[in-house]
Amino acid sequence: MPPKGFAKLNCDEDTPALMKAALFSILCLLAVASPAPGANQPNFVVIFCDDLGYGDLSSFGHPTIKTPHLDVMAAEGQKWTNFYVAACVCTPSRAGLLTGRLPVRNGMCSDTRRVLFPDSSGGLPTTEITISSALKKEGYRTAAVGKWHLGHLPEFLPTSHGFESYFGIPYSNDMDMLRRESHFELAEKGDFSLYNVPLMEDEKILERPADQTTITRRYTEEAIRKINEFGDEPFFIYLAHSLPHIPLFRGKDFANTSTAGIYGDVIEEIDWSVGEIRNALDKAGVSENTLVVFTSDNGPWLKFKHHGGTAGMLRDGKGSTWEGGMREPTIMAWPGTMEPKIVHEMGATLDLLPTFVSLAGGTLPDDRTYDGHDLSRFITGEAKTGPRDEMFYYHGEQLFAVRKGQFKAHFKTKTSYTGQKNAETHDPPLLYHLGLDPGEQWDVAAENPGVLKEMQELAEKHEQGLERVPSHLVGKISD
Amino acid sequence: MPPKGFAKLNCDEDTPALMKAALFSILCLLAVASPAPGANQPNFVVIFCDDLGYGDLSSFGHPTIKTPHLDVMAAEGQKWTNFYVAACVCTPSRAGLLTGRLPVRNGMCSDTRRVLFPDSSGGLPTTEITISSALKKEGYRTAAVGKWHLGHLPEFLPTSHGFESYFGIPYSNDMDMLRRESHFELAEKGDFSLYNVPLMEDEKILERPADQTTITRRYTEEAIRKINEFGDEPFFIYLAHSLPHIPLFRGKDFANTSTAGIYGDVIEEIDWSVGEIRNALDKAGVSENTLVVFTSDNGPWLKFKHHGGTAGMLRDGKGSTWEGGMREPTIMAWPGTMEPKIVHEMGATLDLLPTFVSLAGGTLPDDRTYDGHDLSRFITGEAKTGPRDEMFYYHGEQLFAVRKGQFKAHFKTKTSYTGQKNAETHDPPLLYHLGLDPGEQWDVAAENPGVLKEMQELAEKHEQGLERVPSHLVGKISD
Repeated sequence: MPPKGFAKLNCDEDTPALMKAALFSILCLLAVASPAPGANQPNFVVIFCDDLGYGDLSSFGHPTIKTPHLDVMAAEGQKWTNFYVAACVCTPSRAGLLTGRLPVRNGMCSDTRRVLFPDSSGGLPTTEITISSALKKEGYRTAAVGKWHLGHLPEFLPTSHGFESYFGIPYSNDMDMLRRESHFELAEKGDFSLYNVPLMEDEKILERPADQTTITRRYTEEAIRKINEFGDEPFFIYLAHSLPHIPLFRGKDFANTSTAGIYGDVIEEIDWSVGEIRNALDKAGVSENTLVVFTSDNGPWLKFKHHGGTAGMLRDGKGSTWEGGMREPTIMAWPGTMEPKIVHEMGATLDLLPTFVSLAGGTLPDDRTYDGHDLSRFITGEAKTGPRDEMFYYHGEQLFAVRKGQFKAHFKTKTSYTGQKNAETHDPPLLYHLGLDPGEQWDVAAENPGVLKEMQELAEKHEQGLERVPSHLVGKISD
Repeated sequence: MPPKGFAKLNCDEDTPALMKAALFSILCLLAVASPAPGANQPNFVVIFCDDLGYGDLSSFGHPTIKTPHLDVMAAEGQKWTNFYVAACVCTPSRAGLLTGRLPVRNGMCSDTRRVLFPDSSGGLPTTEITISSALKKEGYRTAAVGKWHLGHLPEFLPTSHGFESYFGIPYSNDMDMLRRESHFELAEKGDFSLYNVPLMEDEKILERPADQTTITRRYTEEAIRKINEFGDEPFFIYLAHSLPHIPLFRGKDFANTSTAGIYGDVIEEIDWSVGEIRNALDKAGVSENTLVVFTSDNGPWLKFKHHGGTAGMLRDGKGSTWEGGMREPTIMAWPGTMEPKIVHEMGATLDLLPTFVSLAGGTLPDDRTYDGHDLSRFITGEAKTGPRDEMFYYHGEQLFAVRKGQFKAHFKTKTSYTGQKNAETHDPPLLYHLGLDPGEQWDVAAENPGVLKEMQELAEKHEQGLERVPSHLVGKISD
């Protein structure tokens, strides 16, 4: 790949010799002075939490949990208040982030087994394009650190999806339990021994059960090692913390330090980690060439009470398509490029793939449908408004709700924490104005028949164009 | 009062003449160079909203309402996340702020008529010491701007309570209604004509009904006029906005500008006002000598739905002793003196009187009980922890709840918005850990009998020492 600038210089054959010589000299100079391939390509670091609630960070209104590093990041960068995930539970949400496609398009959701389990035989198909495989094609170095949950069999692991390396746990930190005991008590005691979750390096198991009391620190160290290893080469690091998913474990430096209890300790350790990552970028001299995105996979797991987070003023949490299940506290920073602001535009984890590929100077093959929008012009300030005006809220394989502008229509709902077994169907749909009513309290369907019709048409149009594939989450290894 | 430095210089009689002459010269220089009396006394500006919810500001987690000036103030100053008001409704809350005493001590609360009305014959007794009368004694200039609601008869107005001037409305902006119509519709239309509330200048009525569409702007202009008038003299300005109490009115520059509807418009105009006030302090060259405190009188009036605010993740709102009724989004700024931080310590509007008097170099007479704590050493950074560890939550004349440290016990509760007529008594009391559970969701009384006993003893001790006076809110002019 020639240094930028060469491709467009096309010497006309009639150019006089002297001019040609002069031009050659200029080109030589350019070749020396030009940045090496990739130097104009920004690095990307995605810090992805697990089950973090919209209201869990100080900058998003939590009165007790201290998150000074994230607060600084929010003040220096962009605090996104309308940023969504692709699904309200773990596996499909992660599939959506990495592929820029709704999980229903690639089989990474299911109405029966909602996520992958240790006995699952499936995983993210290698026919999918991921952020890592797309960026690798653009010359990026790549690393996955943390929780994967897109298939633990070798053919589905990060190293099969464009990541050069992997260090982390392949599914949730509460899985593979050896004996049923109280998550609350084990966590408070710091006893991780009953959670037989492996810690993996690439395709090998390093440790089992993974020591979860040191895991946030070790993920952080691994990510920093990668930052230093990659140096001036453009890179993508996907740092997916296993926490604050229950059971909650934190390092000894963070034990009993938060007023908000063990949940607070865990968030404050993740906040520390964010500070360490940003420091490492500074020390490596690449801060100004790195876009860091902090968010989470879905809302708080409310049934775990004070071991779960809070969605703040948003309704409900993980496992529901109310805002609390799918809107996440999102912070982006890119010093020198990103103007500090609070962003009220919509964005989604689905947008990261097209955004990153665009910023890296690449293009995506047009052989499939993407649900992500390219946010690059908006986040760099070139465009004043963002490209996203709609959001589709899936529960398993079903479209439960749609948002367009400030309106959101619910066709079905299911609360995450009252033990409601079956979804409730709404005909007419429930309609909320999220600007006036972010907490989704006052149904305004009756007063807005026109809007309701528009929302229904939007949903129908979306579903008509959708090519569904069979779920990869249902198969079991023993099947 | 001699300029500082004089008092401690005690010339020894044996001092040789030359040295005496030299000393005299130095003293003369000092006398010229020393600041005038009062120059070491900081100014105080209290910006007090009406019915603002804990979650209504961007820096306190609102996803939609834009409050850039308050965000900057929070980033440059102190954002207090555990700051309380003296009562969950208007009149007693204001009495508590101005006197530093629980309303039950001075008759400014009642179980029957919870606030003052246009037919009320009572008001704040002039035997009470207010922030304004105390600071006037210390040489301060004083001005009250905005809603009063501590008695509209001349003997109770601001000018009878240590304020040199008054510009504002004497009670709530929804009172004295000429004909009952929908607050929602009148507000959306900008029609204030049915609210026969007077706008007063000192003891005179300037305008009736007050034009509420221009009121926030006119309060702001009046406060700025006072800042400029006071110049280098130390001053206290009490700017009590009538809004966002319903009916909601905003200036034409703010009409339909917020994504959060008319409530958002109103908050965004108040935010603009905060910016104007801080600009005026800058221009007057007194920013660094001025402590600005922004807070509100009680939580959001939830029954007014999207014309009311939100308490964010806190429970309930105005009229209840759940956190949402009495914890307010509070921001203080004092450039050059106050170290920017998020404060998790407890504070209360009750603390402003002793804090201001202390910072002004004064003392309070010890002939009465104050419920406020002097926060001055904490806010200036001299002390690392704040003095407040307890909070007493009154509903009318009754103690409903107490907080000590992170625990809060409810002896009685009454929800503000479900139409619950009578308070519910809890025996045993409900107990919440506000650190783990700011939303007061999980009663932990059964697991903490020792704490519960301590809280009950604390309440008993408090009530034993309390000298109650008859309510001044019940009398009517016609009585």
